[in-house]
Amino acid sequence: MISKEFLDMLSQKSVIREIFAYGSERAKEIGYENVFDYSLGNPSVPTPVEFKEKIIEILQENDPMAVHGYSPTLGIPSVRQAVAESLNTRFGMKYEMKHIFMTSAAAGAIAHALRLVTVPGDEVITFAPYFSEYIPYVNKTGAKLKVVPADTKSFQVNFEALDTMMNEKVMALLINTPNNPSGCVYSEETIKKLAAYLKEKEQEYSHPIYIISDEPYREIVFDKVTAPYVAKYYNNTLTCYSFSKSVSLPGERIGYLAVAPGCEGEDVLADMAGQVSRGIGHNCPSSLMQLALPSILYKTSDLSVYETNMNILYDALTDMGFECVRPGGTFYMFPKALEEDAKAFCNKALKYDLLLVPGDGFECPGYFRMAYCIPTEKVERSLEAFKKLVKEY
Amino acid sequence: MISKEFLDMLSQKSVIREIFAYGSERAKEIGYENVFDYSLGNPSVPTPVEFKEKIIEILQENDPMAVHGYSPTLGIPSVRQAVAESLNTRFGMKYEMKHIFMTSAAAGAIAHALRLVTVPGDEVITFAPYFSEYIPYVNKTGAKLKVVPADTKSFQVNFEALDTMMNEKVMALLINTPNNPSGCVYSEETIKKLAAYLKEKEQEYSHPIYIISDEPYREIVFDKVTAPYVAKYYNNTLTCYSFSKSVSLPGERIGYLAVAPGCEGEDVLADMAGQVSRGIGHNCPSSLMQLALPSILYKTSDLSVYETNMNILYDALTDMGFECVRPGGTFYMFPKALEEDAKAFCNKALKYDLLLVPGDGFECPGYFRMAYCIPTEKVERSLEAFKKLVKEY
Repeated sequence: MISKEFLDMLSQKSVIREIFAYGSERAKEIGYENVFDYSLGNPSVPTPVEFKEKIIEILQENDPMAVHGYSPTLGIPSVRQAVAESLNTRFGMKYEMKHIFMTSAAAGAIAHALRLVTVPGDEVITFAPYFSEYIPYVNKTGAKLKVVPADTKSFQVNFEALDTMMNEKVMALLINTPNNPSGCVYSEETIKKLAAYLKEKEQEYSHPIYIISDEPYREIVFDKVTAPYVAKYYNNTLTCYSFSKSVSLPGERIGYLAVAPGCEGEDVLADMAGQVSRGIGHNCPSSLMQLALPSILYKTSDLSVYETNMNILYDALTDMGFECVRPGGTFYMFPKALEEDAKAFCNKALKYDLLLVPGDGFECPGYFRMAYCIPTEKVERSLEAFKKLVKEY
Repeated sequence: MISKEFLDMLSQKSVIREIFAYGSERAKEIGYENVFDYSLGNPSVPTPVEFKEKIIEILQENDPMAVHGYSPTLGIPSVRQAVAESLNTRFGMKYEMKHIFMTSAAAGAIAHALRLVTVPGDEVITFAPYFSEYIPYVNKTGAKLKVVPADTKSFQVNFEALDTMMNEKVMALLINTPNNPSGCVYSEETIKKLAAYLKEKEQEYSHPIYIISDEPYREIVFDKVTAPYVAKYYNNTLTCYSFSKSVSLPGERIGYLAVAPGCEGEDVLADMAGQVSRGIGHNCPSSLMQLALPSILYKTSDLSVYETNMNILYDALTDMGFECVRPGGTFYMFPKALEEDAKAFCNKALKYDLLLVPGDGFECPGYFRMAYCIPTEKVERSLEAFKKLVKEY
């Protein structure tokens, strides 16, 4: 019979998509250029041109059966090797091909990582504010997502709250730095402290506790900073990466799971991921996309617009009296709303054609998310609308 | 902790892959051209050239953000519409966009179909011989796969055995026509009889019983026959299609789930599939692959080599005394082994560098599968090897 579970999910509409749909309707009335849509995290800068050139070269110079033929379940070996080398070069790691499993972007990587190290009944901890898809990602495996309340002063890790929630059923922490929605980048100090804490707990519980590190925004960092590479500080790290944001390929659904060298199970986890795939209908990314990937492993799109926009918005909004932790990366920021009820606040913002997302969906009520992956001139024009909104308070 | 379930699966090696690996080693010794590898179902004819041309045109004429941007969860609307229209034109159906959900090939489609209409504890019936991946596909959802023994006379449906296994916990039948491994195409008579039987059982149990129809070989049919389109004969059909075989795109992982018009839940099932995706990390196929797809919706690769090979093999093997149901399609045939133990038979065949797959893995012991998607001249040269093998008996 038709699954009641998935039927019921249809009526729980995504708040973000509703806001986006409202914006599309409104654009028809007053013109697209007059709607200040900060709702969707869609990259707004083009993919490096080398990617397109590489695809065309592959298609023109190779036998179509070699291009479009079956990829091994774990990914095309030369591509896995190239990914390992790029991580080694960039982060001083020692990945080998055996550690890399090609995935359908970060969502695919997380789906595998969770199933590799948890069984139904286990607990997985994440930190608010967090990407709301983590709820189905974790809970549909049969494990249970527990959420550590936000440290709203810094959006780093709330260690006190973490410690009250830690117990021996916790098999993994699902973290996201640089963070959607806060824009926060975990500091080296935070990651070292987290690693030390988890090592202690691993000893206490006599089992590994994995960090599943969701890193699609890893390259989008500001102030010429590099985001600390989590796996460098903690061996039991499963890094989940997507090429959606850094090279603007969200529709191509390509990413990887990287099992850290020295990780418990390092020799088998990527292989096991191939077995996980059989049960969930996952398949490798497109073979053509895999083959073209080495052309951009050391590149990013021109990401500077995100930092420009962040600076304009951060300065203007804090001037207007908003409380906001300055983002270290991503294309999000997460200011405090001007009233306790962020939903009411975001509703008022609609009057000025400002599309903002209340923090409630990220389990951080009282705040709102802005995705500023839009043209800078629009960001500048939106400031007048913010001024009008502030006047209501 | 590391999942014991998936760790244990690593040691259950695929027989087909072992045979293929043996063949690769052997090729190093005696030359690739001297190994008669009938083990792997890898298409051996190129993709229609229009596909490559379309990809290059899309890349050269469009903004990269439009090409590589997020696809909606259900697929790109224009592509879903084009798929619906192609099915309507070709099979006289009345699909609309709402019925089509783009997937990561047939494996992705089946993963969704199963979760849409079963819950853990339900039963799903399939028919031997069957593609062995059906076991993890079904059992990892929590439902249970039950296998109806083969009708080895025709490899059509064994209705008597089906009737003894049918009960009210059966929510779906997972069928595959044209069939891997038998090459059999269900006749119109078979499908009509199955439809009538299921309608009766739906009434008796007061719930729908869905046919999940796995159709990657739909276009590979012989003798100028068209394979009957299952959904035309039974409303509650979820058609799972892959472009892997008919247009030789196995590495691109693209296909769809088509919910038949008039199906129970026709208005919600594709939408619900988008919800299923959230829990299993499925994502749409590559946006570029989706955009290029309409260029080949009415085309196939030049599939004639498969029929040529089948005729040569069928005639020669039956002449040599093999019992074999003549395949109606695919690039497989499934003769009876010359001794009861098909594994022993296939082992003996290795002496003559014939790589055959025992039927045990398809739950049809005593038979063996040949995947004849190899060059015709090699098929012809392999006949001598078969003659030598036959002499042993």
